[in-house]
Amino acid sequence: MAKDKGITVKKDEDMPEWYSQVILKSELADYSPVKGCLVMRPYSYAIWQKLMDFFNELIFSVGVENAYFPMFIPESLFAKESEHAKGFAPEVAWVEKKEEHEERLALRPTSETIMYDSYAKWIRSYRDLPLIINLWCNIIRWEVKDVKPFLRSREFLWQEGHCVYETQEELHKETLQYLEFYRQVAEDLLAVPVIKGEKTEKERFAGADNTYTIESFMPDGKALQMGTSHDLSQGFAKSFNIEYLGRDEKFHAPWQNSWGISTRMIGAMVMMHGDDKGLVLPPKAAPIPVVIVPIIFEDTKKKVLAKAKEIQKATKGKLDDRDHYSAGWKFNQWEMKGVPIRIEIGPKDVEKDQCMLVRRDTGEKVPVALKDIKKTVSDTLETMQKDMLDKARKKMESMIDSSDNWEDFQKKTKDKMVRVKFCGEPECEENIKAETGGVTSRCQPLEGADPTGKCFKCGKEAKMDMYFSRNY
Amino acid sequence: MAKDKGITVKKDEDMPEWYSQVILKSELADYSPVKGCLVMRPYSYAIWQKLMDFFNELIFSVGVENAYFPMFIPESLFAKESEHAKGFAPEVAWVEKKEEHEERLALRPTSETIMYDSYAKWIRSYRDLPLIINLWCNIIRWEVKDVKPFLRSREFLWQEGHCVYETQEELHKETLQYLEFYRQVAEDLLAVPVIKGEKTEKERFAGADNTYTIESFMPDGKALQMGTSHDLSQGFAKSFNIEYLGRDEKFHAPWQNSWGISTRMIGAMVMMHGDDKGLVLPPKAAPIPVVIVPIIFEDTKKKVLAKAKEIQKATKGKLDDRDHYSAGWKFNQWEMKGVPIRIEIGPKDVEKDQCMLVRRDTGEKVPVALKDIKKTVSDTLETMQKDMLDKARKKMESMIDSSDNWEDFQKKTKDKMVRVKFCGEPECEENIKAETGGVTSRCQPLEGADPTGKCFKCGKEAKMDMYFSRNY
Repeated sequence: MAKDKGITVKKDEDMPEWYSQVILKSELADYSPVKGCLVMRPYSYAIWQKLMDFFNELIFSVGVENAYFPMFIPESLFAKESEHAKGFAPEVAWVEKKEEHEERLALRPTSETIMYDSYAKWIRSYRDLPLIINLWCNIIRWEVKDVKPFLRSREFLWQEGHCVYETQEELHKETLQYLEFYRQVAEDLLAVPVIKGEKTEKERFAGADNTYTIESFMPDGKALQMGTSHDLSQGFAKSFNIEYLGRDEKFHAPWQNSWGISTRMIGAMVMMHGDDKGLVLPPKAAPIPVVIVPIIFEDTKKKVLAKAKEIQKATKGKLDDRDHYSAGWKFNQWEMKGVPIRIEIGPKDVEKDQCMLVRRDTGEKVPVALKDIKKTVSDTLETMQKDMLDKARKKMESMIDSSDNWEDFQKKTKDKMVRVKFCGEPECEENIKAETGGVTSRCQPLEGADPTGKCFKCGKEAKMDMYFSRNY
Repeated sequence: MAKDKGITVKKDEDMPEWYSQVILKSELADYSPVKGCLVMRPYSYAIWQKLMDFFNELIFSVGVENAYFPMFIPESLFAKESEHAKGFAPEVAWVEKKEEHEERLALRPTSETIMYDSYAKWIRSYRDLPLIINLWCNIIRWEVKDVKPFLRSREFLWQEGHCVYETQEELHKETLQYLEFYRQVAEDLLAVPVIKGEKTEKERFAGADNTYTIESFMPDGKALQMGTSHDLSQGFAKSFNIEYLGRDEKFHAPWQNSWGISTRMIGAMVMMHGDDKGLVLPPKAAPIPVVIVPIIFEDTKKKVLAKAKEIQKATKGKLDDRDHYSAGWKFNQWEMKGVPIRIEIGPKDVEKDQCMLVRRDTGEKVPVALKDIKKTVSDTLETMQKDMLDKARKKMESMIDSSDNWEDFQKKTKDKMVRVKFCGEPECEENIKAETGGVTSRCQPLEGADPTGKCFKCGKEAKMDMYFSRNY
């Protein structure tokens, strides 16, 4: 962003433009010459790496192993589970055939079908279960809607986990366990609060019996689906002839789930925390948690730089000692990039054996004695991680409401997430979406749902206690 | 490999069949329903992860950052550097167009063209240099030759680094530095000895001024190119209009290199070290360095298992306490999977406060006092890592020869790597390949090359001191 100015719009006045500028100017990402595709620059890839490390640690602790499957899916395999094929068909991209006799190949929009073909070969007996494999890979979906960096693009990075179990009980328990891991990624790493819930029949993954989701609510009044865990029941197992010899010496279809999160998580974090100066990164997700900017004057340069280096050593921060940029320019740049803590040190500070510590989230600036800097930085990073989640949660809660009638619902869903009693019928849901110009069901919370009563829209018996809102 | 037998052929009698069996039966990989594509099962992906971690540490130490670029390359971009486009054209796969007016998109066979389009936007002044970005990604090359797991397939995983420098000196130095990192991956991690060298004009990367390589020589008498680092000079910079404002206030084309290694590294390791019982993994690359197999009899089960658990704790090994498999079956399985150290412990060992330690590479079996097990395991792993490289190097050196005439060369290249004085002419090289049925130039070693003399084939003035052999 060398010669660029800061962000030219306010976040709460024009969030789409703000989002686009902050992503480009913080150097998280760039547009590419390929329509609908994004360049993840090193700054966003470093965040993605942190997310991968964080999530790998969680899943390894329960025995998940990573693997890699081909990105090409033969058309015949792709078509095996009919609901799945129908659901994904519009967004699948295909490879131009090289030889006429070869089968048409899809570029994976998700890997169920290519993986379960192998699973059918590998699974013989209950001793082979559970089979639990995760992939980190690129996914291709030829979306028709507008692309938006990290939120919606033709190619994106994600992980997809695919488990096979002996019993339905195990399936159910583990499907929710992966959802809980997703909550931890969102809240504990990215400081983005979420609601854990269950999707309606209409919003389920194509081919699933049930889809669980973590949903967050962005400051502009739209929900963002951040991760999903699907109960596939025995549908795919039956379509792909996956069978195991049980403890009873008979053959059974096993139970399956699949679950995924993507680089969309990064988009949620940007929208949730960013401000008019740029990104604000939660410390645990920040590639650079601390930056040290010395205030240089020719006559005191040596002394100030020596102290700055001591601070760098103590805090493991990044020392910005470039001499062709002014301190003020550097402050702006590191604010744009959302670095959680900035430490300033000038000749006057050196005289007082102190430095100035500036928090990116609050802008608070306090002097800190040099001898305390290590501990103060470490405490501040911890506090900031917690504060950012708390603040975001309060913000989100202030945007959640409930309703019991259609007129009130229409008003509130302009910019809020609204909880209602709902019949759960796809047709009623379709009507709601059409008549509001885009309000969709988000989820029925896993905790505290009470579906008794009448549907707020059609008056039929309610079957779900549902959040609705506009969404990304 | 539950019910399968061991490998049914000997490595030195039928290496292709041996290779295929060892890969499948050790569960490194599996064939997929997609022609020419491989499933990397968790066991090989764990090795790949170790390689990624090892290599990331090396490149991060010199300031490389990871990023991600789209896998789609618009035809017009792909065509910009003509040599490059010509070289890759036969193996490029394309996406079926969704809309007639859209440009045709290639699936990346390598990412120079898509990356350098962004580089041209990002580089303005010498202050933006060096620009050093690495990608871990999947690559698509529609190879016409036979596919072979890890060695040649339509899709594979790799890393590709792309650097831009101010000066040619820096370029040259760093291009060789990445080659040295590749030597470290091959030799220090995978215990596969290599020769560092320079390719002929004919064998260069399409669009490069010079290609450096690490070449190894497999036990069946074929060379394997394991990694390459390309001096791209200013060719791509000029084709993609990459320019920077120099310290002299004038615009210049910068200097570039690119460098890559792939999952092929895993194939080399398998071929180099495996034996008739299966894989033999060097300790540093082994997902499971130590396995503990208790010898269970009903009456002493408790005592033996308790000691086995102590050993597990001390060695951080994997305890194989499955009770539906016999100890003998387990020995075979862990030998097939190449686990470096197996520890056996039975009731008689418990009485003597000892266990048996078995080295996978030598088969050597020694008793070890339980109190010494931690240190002995750690020392043995270290020795084994070194021994495996030494043994492989000796084997490789015994298969390297030299020659000064065509007749002798033809005989020796049946199963050896042969060093000759060579004119370096593409036409002469083409003749050598055609007349021998496949012998190709491998590299001129970086150290000790002496190109003086006459070409062993055509008699012209020699320009290179070159290794030739058959190859994978």
